[in-house]
Amino acid sequence: MKIAIYGYGNIGRAVELAAAQNDDMETYGVFTRRSPENIHTVTGVPVYAAKDILAHKGSFDVLVICGGSATDLPEMTPRLAADFCVVDSFDTHARIPEHFANVNAAAKAGRNVAVISGGWDPGMFSVTRLYSSAILPVGQDYTFWGRGVSQGHSDAIRRIPGVLDARQYTVPVPEALEAVRSGETPELTTRQKHTRECYVVAEEGADRDAITEAIVTMPNYFADYDTTVTFISMEEMKRDHASLPHGGYVFRTGTTGADGEHRHMIEYHLTLDSNPEFTAGVLVCLARAAKKLYDRGECGCRTIFDIAPADLSALSPEELRAHYL
Amino acid sequence: MKIAIYGYGNIGRAVELAAAQNDDMETYGVFTRRSPENIHTVTGVPVYAAKDILAHKGSFDVLVICGGSATDLPEMTPRLAADFCVVDSFDTHARIPEHFANVNAAAKAGRNVAVISGGWDPGMFSVTRLYSSAILPVGQDYTFWGRGVSQGHSDAIRRIPGVLDARQYTVPVPEALEAVRSGETPELTTRQKHTRECYVVAEEGADRDAITEAIVTMPNYFADYDTTVTFISMEEMKRDHASLPHGGYVFRTGTTGADGEHRHMIEYHLTLDSNPEFTAGVLVCLARAAKKLYDRGECGCRTIFDIAPADLSALSPEELRAHYL
Repeated sequence: MKIAIYGYGNIGRAVELAAAQNDDMETYGVFTRRSPENIHTVTGVPVYAAKDILAHKGSFDVLVICGGSATDLPEMTPRLAADFCVVDSFDTHARIPEHFANVNAAAKAGRNVAVISGGWDPGMFSVTRLYSSAILPVGQDYTFWGRGVSQGHSDAIRRIPGVLDARQYTVPVPEALEAVRSGETPELTTRQKHTRECYVVAEEGADRDAITEAIVTMPNYFADYDTTVTFISMEEMKRDHASLPHGGYVFRTGTTGADGEHRHMIEYHLTLDSNPEFTAGVLVCLARAAKKLYDRGECGCRTIFDIAPADLSALSPEELRAHYL
Repeated sequence: MKIAIYGYGNIGRAVELAAAQNDDMETYGVFTRRSPENIHTVTGVPVYAAKDILAHKGSFDVLVICGGSATDLPEMTPRLAADFCVVDSFDTHARIPEHFANVNAAAKAGRNVAVISGGWDPGMFSVTRLYSSAILPVGQDYTFWGRGVSQGHSDAIRRIPGVLDARQYTVPVPEALEAVRSGETPELTTRQKHTRECYVVAEEGADRDAITEAIVTMPNYFADYDTTVTFISMEEMKRDHASLPHGGYVFRTGTTGADGEHRHMIEYHLTLDSNPEFTAGVLVCLARAAKKLYDRGECGCRTIFDIAPADLSALSPEELRAHYL
């Protein structure tokens, strides 16, 4: 099957690399809003202008849309789903129902399959929460993120006057993880679940106390957390904080039995050296599934909840039953 | 929806309890090959003779077949799938393709939906392996079982002359778990992955050395493992080993990037106080899915690989997208 990539940032590059790891898949090309001649792809796939994409209709099976959730995807995914089977990684949890409705209408009109909100959260964490709560209906969910870089929080720090660069790590509180694992089903506040570590490169002569104060009191982003701020040099930033690790934990603790006397614990844990590359691994599986659904005559919007696991795999149902069940 | 239960052992009782935890579900009755008047169900559901089951056709939606994989299920599931939508927990991994073919033919002929091999392994462990290897195609899988009671190994010990009762625990080797978690991708032998702890009640005057020797040298079951044998009294057996805990770990370690420079680790970990009750939690979700598939006009055999996660849940697609994605 052939995929194409729309948008060539961290996720777009990672999708190109992920497709190269899958023997059943090749990348037809990258579509960019920048000047195609200025972009050199990692594996040498061709680059085309995004505005010309309709001329490529029929040349590939699924378009993986690699844009931001704030403004790109709400506009791009419905527009492109009218003409192509598409996959995106829309991750603004609160706006998923609205995005789903818009994409579903466009994909149905174009008789295409669209899969939204792929990745690990939303994505693999979501599907783990669904399975776990269905199996253990009497129970409690916990999700922890990190240790990993939050791009949104890093960006928020960069907007503070006097800041040249910043990297923010979200870190689960070890005592909270242990309390959940012990089966205590604790009630945890925001502050008890995660801490935030900030590494900041300041302009020469900047007021570091003012920067620290601006960070730790920032509403929504930092005010509800125990936040540490460490000033480092640009060299240290480049040397020690160049990668984008992430991960986290989904727990479900539940009880069964005539009197709820038996406890059960499901723990799903991701440790990722590269957040965009793992996300891309999920996106290309969803692209594979989108093609299978399309080939069966389906259309409309789907999420990972609506896709049978076998449709994500390159293996046949017979191989999966014989070797993975 | 209404389920019925065929066979009333550990799993059958656990299915009855699991259905009682799900508001969208009630249990129509239990079918038994024993004398119905001698069976008292935990929640008071009626008991019928297995031989009369055809007279109950149309009275319930899905029959959960709770028999053993060695001889019961290979005969029961195809026979009953001809007349009912069914779910089973067939767990002889090597014979799944053959069982699938038999059940598929019967279910198609009867225009019913059958879901086989539900539980946690096969079941949730399988689906975790499928997702993980699809997302990280360049990588390695590890499955560890325990700490938990292996009924097959306990039964094997009970067949040794002089043994009154026995309980065998399968235990993952902590160093092996740590080696995998560290990302070392070790090659592990059978002996390096698990140890086996045996608790044995011997007849008075039995030759304990001979029993120990018979256990630790038993081919397939114990010879390839470091096995410990502890003799205990019947009182200790009843007091300390009455429950059936189990669990285990599925790991996938994989690499991504232009030069495989990024490592990723997926860990799925179950800690279960009651193996049959967790298994039953999965079976009732599969029963719910079987009804949804049947109501859409589908027929034939399915496994958890073929079922969209949303079909396992009692929640609507809208609720799932709004709260679980």
